[in-house]
Amino acid sequence: MPKQPGAAARTPVTDRSSIRPGNLGLILRRLRDDGPRSRTALAADTGLPKATISSLVTELADLGLVREGDPQRGEGAVGRPRLAVELDGRGVCGIGVEINADYVAAIALDLRGRTVFERRAAADVPALGAAGTLDVVGRLTAEAITQTRSAGIRPLGMTIAAPGGADPATGSITTAVNLGWRDVPVVAPLRERFGADVPLPPIAIRNDAHVATVAEYVAVAGAGVRDLLYVTGEMGVGGGVYNGGQPYHGARGRACEFGHMPINPEPVACPCGRVGCWETMVGLGAFLDHATDSGDIVRDPLTDRERRLAELHRRAESGDERTLGALREIAAGLGRGVALLVDAFDPELVVLGGYFTQFADYLLEPVQRAIDERILNPSTGRCEVRPSTHRYTSTVRGGAQFALEPVFQDPVGTIGRSPAL
Amino acid sequence: MPKQPGAAARTPVTDRSSIRPGNLGLILRRLRDDGPRSRTALAADTGLPKATISSLVTELADLGLVREGDPQRGEGAVGRPRLAVELDGRGVCGIGVEINADYVAAIALDLRGRTVFERRAAADVPALGAAGTLDVVGRLTAEAITQTRSAGIRPLGMTIAAPGGADPATGSITTAVNLGWRDVPVVAPLRERFGADVPLPPIAIRNDAHVATVAEYVAVAGAGVRDLLYVTGEMGVGGGVYNGGQPYHGARGRACEFGHMPINPEPVACPCGRVGCWETMVGLGAFLDHATDSGDIVRDPLTDRERRLAELHRRAESGDERTLGALREIAAGLGRGVALLVDAFDPELVVLGGYFTQFADYLLEPVQRAIDERILNPSTGRCEVRPSTHRYTSTVRGGAQFALEPVFQDPVGTIGRSPAL
Repeated sequence: MPKQPGAAARTPVTDRSSIRPGNLGLILRRLRDDGPRSRTALAADTGLPKATISSLVTELADLGLVREGDPQRGEGAVGRPRLAVELDGRGVCGIGVEINADYVAAIALDLRGRTVFERRAAADVPALGAAGTLDVVGRLTAEAITQTRSAGIRPLGMTIAAPGGADPATGSITTAVNLGWRDVPVVAPLRERFGADVPLPPIAIRNDAHVATVAEYVAVAGAGVRDLLYVTGEMGVGGGVYNGGQPYHGARGRACEFGHMPINPEPVACPCGRVGCWETMVGLGAFLDHATDSGDIVRDPLTDRERRLAELHRRAESGDERTLGALREIAAGLGRGVALLVDAFDPELVVLGGYFTQFADYLLEPVQRAIDERILNPSTGRCEVRPSTHRYTSTVRGGAQFALEPVFQDPVGTIGRSPAL
Repeated sequence: MPKQPGAAARTPVTDRSSIRPGNLGLILRRLRDDGPRSRTALAADTGLPKATISSLVTELADLGLVREGDPQRGEGAVGRPRLAVELDGRGVCGIGVEINADYVAAIALDLRGRTVFERRAAADVPALGAAGTLDVVGRLTAEAITQTRSAGIRPLGMTIAAPGGADPATGSITTAVNLGWRDVPVVAPLRERFGADVPLPPIAIRNDAHVATVAEYVAVAGAGVRDLLYVTGEMGVGGGVYNGGQPYHGARGRACEFGHMPINPEPVACPCGRVGCWETMVGLGAFLDHATDSGDIVRDPLTDRERRLAELHRRAESGDERTLGALREIAAGLGRGVALLVDAFDPELVVLGGYFTQFADYLLEPVQRAIDERILNPSTGRCEVRPSTHRYTSTVRGGAQFALEPVFQDPVGTIGRSPAL
């Protein structure tokens, strides 16, 4: 996951040759996190001499990563207005790809976060199997690369995200119960589909909820949030944590595996082989089981999930008692698990993603009440619950942001490693 | 909680006057974490010139915090053996105080971790109430201060730890269900008991399991552990987490509140007012309820807890089926909750403290099995379970270490703020 500002400063810089790339990245991160700033402000922020700042800004401008923006005048300031430096990077992008149980999606974001490509394809992934699914992924990524390149935008990296364990070292999915996958290589077979003649940027593989958490964090970091818990409802239940502005990974990158907490008082069987997992209370499967019968059209995996859920939302709006009862069940289970996680991780903000976002008007208030009631030390401050900023695109957006992160650490090296247009 | 090495380097040093205190602390932390080192090795470690190192070491030696130790010769090295610098600090100490449901304890550790004072008093704290309990705390701390001072050891700080929420800003306990305390001021009434004529070092208040985690982390950090989950069995169940060598606090310092996770399949009432909390499965009360009847001598709060539990351990050893059945219940509940927390925090090591340590020979193996079985991605490495290094003294030791931490950040200022002998 991306490092946040400050992380780079942890290791004291002792090797002279590493100072300049580090400082180029430092300036990019400042502009991303704090918005446009004058060279003088950048010098004050970083403690670097103004002449050094000017030289670094020129180098970043030559790479197309920053530009001189509108004149900036401090409030009540007199004298010559100062030109602000701002992120540009419209010539580079990161690509995020999501493999989910019932769709594959891809997005490309440029350095300013502007969407330059977006596509989603309904797909019954467990039925398609790994090879069939990677065909779909191959088609979507080929389209993303072709379209961005032909628009003069250079892909710097690609992140494949899936609902399960991912091994970055081998480029494979270790366990994705809801896809029916175990130890499935992804990066190598995907590269093979392109052939040697199509130059590809670096490809990484990650857990979907972890990269979605990146997107949710970036969306609220500007408002000063540093401690975030993200919980998302898909077929499974996933999540992620930021603590003090840093993603929480754990010792081996497999932290925040929340879906199988044994908190269902009923011994409901889980696809993972155990009973009573949280997923059996609040996963999308549990919601559909509560709300619908087996022949219901909203259960058809070949129809886009968002449209199927919109139908369920319409039923709730129209007062359908079965749908409303199902939502009450989900809200109760969600409150139970989220309150536990708030006691464990102590975030200042909980963001609910996936289908929880689509039904936020039914889920938010009971979950907030569960947190408020259960918190052991309410005197030390409230923990607020909000719906996802990006709804179903958190994972692809986070994947694209994750793919762009290296440019914020080492701009020159990262651009050098990606194929030219 | 103490910052670990590296934390201080996060903020780039720009203010010249802050560099020297920072570097004095940096050298002390190196010696604490890596053991005795030559000046040359310290220069290489820190990137500081050797002349600066010599001047800093001289200043630390004048403060009595380091000394020149035995000659050190690298393996196969030739030439003059180098004098190693090592932590000294036998003239300063930190004091840790623990208020528990059935005892009050205090310890004083010098800078090398040597115990220079230790005392424990059985006390029925819920019956004594806050004022009566603070009388006991006052007697113990007075003894600790008098004895260390008369031995020429200067107390630099004191940490009071209790099983519940602590508000460092007001010096009070916010909620301690098992003591029956809510919003009880501690630091001010304790200072009053000493009167204005007895100069006291700074006094801090913290959650007991959080400071115990400090002691457990320090005990294993030398072996390279950086990601630790600590779970302790007292009347309640507490815990703490280190991630990447940093204590996990959360947004408001109330993270790692594990005792009230709703994971008991049976709706057992908890002292907190809810049902099904983890504490109702594995707290000391649950163990005593499973293992004994109400008149049993091991339930007498006025007898030292360790001795009472030793009697239960003897019964288990002699094959008493009731005791063994109770331990099987505790092991099952402990495995259930610990596995959940391993999925959430992804530590490399789980340490079981409190009474779990005393019964480690019955609990460790089933808890290890529960983790191994439940872990979703076992291919990426095992998480080991171990008993506490310090058993019932983790909290007081961690409190004393926490009280000493400021000297590792700013040696001169910390010694200046503590009363002279």
